[in-house]
Amino acid sequence: MQLTRAADYGVRAMVYLAGLPSHSRASIAELAKATESPEAFLTKVLQRLVSTGLIDSHRGPSGGFELRTPAAEIFLLDVVEAIEGPIQLNLCTGKCNGSPACGRQDWCAVHLVWQHAQAKLREILGAACIETLAQESKQRLAAIRDVPVHSI
Amino acid sequence: MQLTRAADYGVRAMVYLAGLPSHSRASIAELAKATESPEAFLTKVLQRLVSTGLIDSHRGPSGGFELRTPAAEIFLLDVVEAIEGPIQLNLCTGKCNGSPACGRQDWCAVHLVWQHAQAKLREILGAACIETLAQESKQRLAAIRDVPVHSI
Repeated sequence: MQLTRAADYGVRAMVYLAGLPSHSRASIAELAKATESPEAFLTKVLQRLVSTGLIDSHRGPSGGFELRTPAAEIFLLDVVEAIEGPIQLNLCTGKCNGSPACGRQDWCAVHLVWQHAQAKLREILGAACIETLAQESKQRLAAIRDVPVHSI
Repeated sequence: MQLTRAADYGVRAMVYLAGLPSHSRASIAELAKATESPEAFLTKVLQRLVSTGLIDSHRGPSGGFELRTPAAEIFLLDVVEAIEGPIQLNLCTGKCNGSPACGRQDWCAVHLVWQHAQAKLREILGAACIETLAQESKQRLAAIRDVPVHSI
């Protein structure tokens, strides 16, 4: 029951892109450094973020990656689910070909706990705005380095 | 970010054992049927529950598995963590040789969201008592089958 490295790196990349000046783009090398991730692996993660519509990729000398929509409209939940698919804390909370994935869910009381836990997790991740996370991270980093936020 | 099948089967087994009359034991065959799990796989799960002190295993004609402590004192969190280890929603919320597992946690605002989500998840699972889950499951099953609870 743990976030994949792919999703973790995807979140790091999204938060980094959200912290860039408007209309800036970042190269794969810049993103790999910023997210502390292997470039080849991050490339696949970014392809997934492109295909799910969260970022755009541009070729050429002024190319690179950028957010497709304003960071204020993107939430941690969007990024995690773009990479991992819908959050499903236990198999029993999902569907299988439109039917309940678990035949015990009509009576199993544990199913209700998993549903509750999953709803709470989605609520917390769904309230965490990528723009806010980027700003807070920059402020905290600036405080640690004792430098102005705009220099981060 | 999903519960393993091992933990799911372990939870089913614990809830089943909690629903048995006092001092009853269940064989591996009975537990495999009740949990709808493959016997060989469930055997390994039960061994884990034995080694972590949640259940006892007895040999002989009147042998079988039983809870080691009263079901009222066991919570869903105990069972999940007995099988999967401490819940760690993201690598960054853990430790590595006593040090933070992620060097970004002093400034990364996403880390705080993962900490919050993990604490909430542990709180929900930590409040779900195995005895209550067993009773509720039996009541719901009895209602579906339109039979008295004691016949379940």
